[in-house]
Amino acid sequence: MTMQETRLNQYIAIIQRANQIAASTTLDQLLGEMLDLIVTTMHASAGTLYLYDPQRHELIFKVVQGSPESEQLVGARIDADRGVAGAALRSGAAIYVPDVAADPRWDRRIGELGGVPLRTMYCLPLTLHGRPVGVIQVFNLPQETIDEPDEIALVELLSSRLVTEVEKARLLEESRAREGRMQALVEIISSLTTTLDRNELLRRIMAHACRLLNVEATSIWLRDMETGDLVLDLASGKGSEMMEARRVPAGHGIIGHVVNTGETVVVNDVSNDPRFYRKIDAQSGFVTRAILCVPLHSPRILVGGERGIVEERVVGGAQALNPRDNRAFSQEDIELFHTLASQAATVIRLSQLYADTDSLFTRIIDAITGAIDLKDPYTRGHSQRVSDYSVAIAQELGLPDEEIYRLRISSKLHDVGKIRIPDSILKKPGRLDDDEFLEMRRHPTYGQEFLEENDLLKLELLRDSWQSLAQHHERLDGKGYPNGLTGEQISLFGRIVAVADVFDAITSHRPYRPAMTVDRAFEILRAGAGSELDGACVEALISARTHGLIQTQDERQG
Amino acid sequence: MTMQETRLNQYIAIIQRANQIAASTTLDQLLGEMLDLIVTTMHASAGTLYLYDPQRHELIFKVVQGSPESEQLVGARIDADRGVAGAALRSGAAIYVPDVAADPRWDRRIGELGGVPLRTMYCLPLTLHGRPVGVIQVFNLPQETIDEPDEIALVELLSSRLVTEVEKARLLEESRAREGRMQALVEIISSLTTTLDRNELLRRIMAHACRLLNVEATSIWLRDMETGDLVLDLASGKGSEMMEARRVPAGHGIIGHVVNTGETVVVNDVSNDPRFYRKIDAQSGFVTRAILCVPLHSPRILVGGERGIVEERVVGGAQALNPRDNRAFSQEDIELFHTLASQAATVIRLSQLYADTDSLFTRIIDAITGAIDLKDPYTRGHSQRVSDYSVAIAQELGLPDEEIYRLRISSKLHDVGKIRIPDSILKKPGRLDDDEFLEMRRHPTYGQEFLEENDLLKLELLRDSWQSLAQHHERLDGKGYPNGLTGEQISLFGRIVAVADVFDAITSHRPYRPAMTVDRAFEILRAGAGSELDGACVEALISARTHGLIQTQDERQG
Repeated sequence: MTMQETRLNQYIAIIQRANQIAASTTLDQLLGEMLDLIVTTMHASAGTLYLYDPQRHELIFKVVQGSPESEQLVGARIDADRGVAGAALRSGAAIYVPDVAADPRWDRRIGELGGVPLRTMYCLPLTLHGRPVGVIQVFNLPQETIDEPDEIALVELLSSRLVTEVEKARLLEESRAREGRMQALVEIISSLTTTLDRNELLRRIMAHACRLLNVEATSIWLRDMETGDLVLDLASGKGSEMMEARRVPAGHGIIGHVVNTGETVVVNDVSNDPRFYRKIDAQSGFVTRAILCVPLHSPRILVGGERGIVEERVVGGAQALNPRDNRAFSQEDIELFHTLASQAATVIRLSQLYADTDSLFTRIIDAITGAIDLKDPYTRGHSQRVSDYSVAIAQELGLPDEEIYRLRISSKLHDVGKIRIPDSILKKPGRLDDDEFLEMRRHPTYGQEFLEENDLLKLELLRDSWQSLAQHHERLDGKGYPNGLTGEQISLFGRIVAVADVFDAITSHRPYRPAMTVDRAFEILRAGAGSELDGACVEALISARTHGLIQTQDERQG
Repeated sequence: MTMQETRLNQYIAIIQRANQIAASTTLDQLLGEMLDLIVTTMHASAGTLYLYDPQRHELIFKVVQGSPESEQLVGARIDADRGVAGAALRSGAAIYVPDVAADPRWDRRIGELGGVPLRTMYCLPLTLHGRPVGVIQVFNLPQETIDEPDEIALVELLSSRLVTEVEKARLLEESRAREGRMQALVEIISSLTTTLDRNELLRRIMAHACRLLNVEATSIWLRDMETGDLVLDLASGKGSEMMEARRVPAGHGIIGHVVNTGETVVVNDVSNDPRFYRKIDAQSGFVTRAILCVPLHSPRILVGGERGIVEERVVGGAQALNPRDNRAFSQEDIELFHTLASQAATVIRLSQLYADTDSLFTRIIDAITGAIDLKDPYTRGHSQRVSDYSVAIAQELGLPDEEIYRLRISSKLHDVGKIRIPDSILKKPGRLDDDEFLEMRRHPTYGQEFLEENDLLKLELLRDSWQSLAQHHERLDGKGYPNGLTGEQISLFGRIVAVADVFDAITSHRPYRPAMTVDRAFEILRAGAGSELDGACVEALISARTHGLIQTQDERQG
């Protein structure tokens, strides 16, 4: 084999090694091994590799080969205009320095690498499609390497290979990172809809945002619909415990701007932004460096039915503060936070839609039952109390949430049938005659008819709830009314409301007697257990009282 | 320069060219150019490249170089055990065929490439970490290429480079495809929450699923809570117009299995699955080949407030049918459809929660106002009609949805204050005395108090709605009651309900006179416009009548 053939074989072996290295897909591993191959190929003793950060126009010290003790330099940043590296980057051509120590451009912090003083250096800029990608510096290479054009051509081959591999690895890492963040986002926004509880919802959103954006703190500010002020609703992350009940006056601060204009604002250095509202930091002790602020913009929601469409609205704003690791906010951070915030705004609005309708319903029911109770001045507040007692009994008995809800509503309506009893009977001060007595005893039936005639029993939410209305005057021994049902014929709802109703009657003031004590009431209930009342329901009421769940008419007014 | 030096330079030039090619990131471009480089390097006249499909154990004809007229072969698949390619793949080593036509393993479909008969062939298997990736075939290369080890080493270098580049390009393409699908998923599940309208919701989900999974059809089946049957709620894609109101009996079909067990089922060939319910295809004419079926599983939802927690529930199932391009369902399809279906189930449940509460509220209001109307047998249905007329007027006037909603509720409640007027006055057949008359005229004030005392006015949903109750007997000229307001002092709600109330009084039967005609009513209203009633509201009512929105008491009963 001639010497040239040997060199050809060596070259092929080096290129093969480069191929093997390129088969690794992690960027750091690839960079280290490629630099090592270049150092070996050039018969040098050490090498360093910098990658270029175009946003800051800086070179980041990424890899050092041949000198384990210099690894602490990794991560350092230098101005991309300075030093030999800067010169090579600007000119786009390699620079050979025969004596590093004598070169005025040389950064003296790097005294020696691998325990050997630095003498010669070959500095090679890395570019892709004309854009700077980084710089390689190789140290203490022999003069012969420089004098051999094939050798230099081979090194350039390896470095151009390095650049394309860096680019591919970067594209893949970025794509995978985006994929991972998207996956996380899917999980987060899916999980948001599993609650309509506003506080729980806000807490989840902010905790997720803190983690997903890797920032020091996040907060949600909701617009006070009357004053327009922005009120801190929830803060997550560093200093959040100091952040209670803060308020930014309408139109003030970066958040005020965002909420008024609907724009997203990124400020990577708030010290230069005149809009920044300093009072919050002053109150909390938190030092805000950078802010990403997005509007909480809920879209038009097609509610359907009688409410039709609910118009879009900016309900407030969300802030992410201080990206960790001294990063600036990236375009990706902005998009991610934006998506999260719009979903949050929608779900906040949905929960509000639900809560509005629910509280409207609850208050209307309370208003109606209150009005019915008022027909008889001695039953003021009776329906509400019977409902409270019934719910307490059901909770002691361990009924599920959905049944408790039905019982709560239906027990509140237990006397609704009285709306059909004429005032002349309902408000009669003296004794009722036989016909009047008969009519009065029809109120459970009228109640059931009230539900039936208005198709209320077809609703899943009120399933079986007629029992509270129809059966709350039945007795286990069959001596009750209107149907004289016995034992198992009486539903659980009927039994519960019967106990609650009798207890309220005993512990309330009547025209002809004062309220009795709770202890006396329990004696009477226990005496009636088994014949009139259900024993388990009576004991559940007594047990609920020991748990502080039962307050009589007197106790409520006191 | 020696001949060896020339060859060294040529080699370096070839490797440089390979680097340039590798800088492209699309797989097809890279494959074509690399094959071209290999053909040139080997001094051959044509080449072909196959990629290996491990799922089907087939080679896919991917690229042909040197023969434009053979491009129609691209995409063809051959058994990976057959031919010279199969032999090279099995042995893992290159095969040189000195005379293609004489080799019995040769596939004779490829007679010639580039107009030149095929003579010699070099067949090189492509592997990565021992796994087969594909095969390269190079045709009509000179004997000298084979005899030169450096030449062969260079070709192996290029082919190993090709393999790593294929792998990297594939990883990147896959990651980007997943990223794109995730991005689409984020957009879809975000958009789901912008409607609580169940039908619109189901329609959106299925259309998105059809597109995202690239399947022929999708459908949603909801569980009938009484019978357990699965009822087709919505179908999207091919044959969907034939798919109305289909029903699968409880426990039948793949969907029945999925709904009962909560499992996801994939069947890539339904003809072999005994669970497949053939009746639906028979009815619709659609031919089901493959099914991906997932449960619609709504999670526990924290509703908060009085309803507490709503338990998890399988509400039905979703099906995707027949992936396009003869694909099988992939793991990714399954995960995607699963995520989409669980989000859909949650949003379906949320919309149901809202709709349940909303319809409960609406019916309770109807029941209450109906009961109030019943106090006076001649006002049966009055509140409902006044509400309908008020809404019709508001729609003619172009009020926004949110105000119309408030008007609908508050006009229905306009006489709720009568609940405090004693029966003796309300039901008195003859003329009221002065005191009774005064008490009767207090009902608008009692109505307003009813709202105030029950904190109903604090609700956003009822903002300003007291006006309908308090001002529906006021007159523009100040001669109304209870406060004798004039002109602008009377709110729009007050004016609208006044017109609706008067119109219903005129067109309803009274003990002392029959109902008047609509035309006569309009004459009376127009006569009162400007003094008693608001002219614009009167005209809006008349205009609503021409649009078919107004039905009187008589017309409703007829």
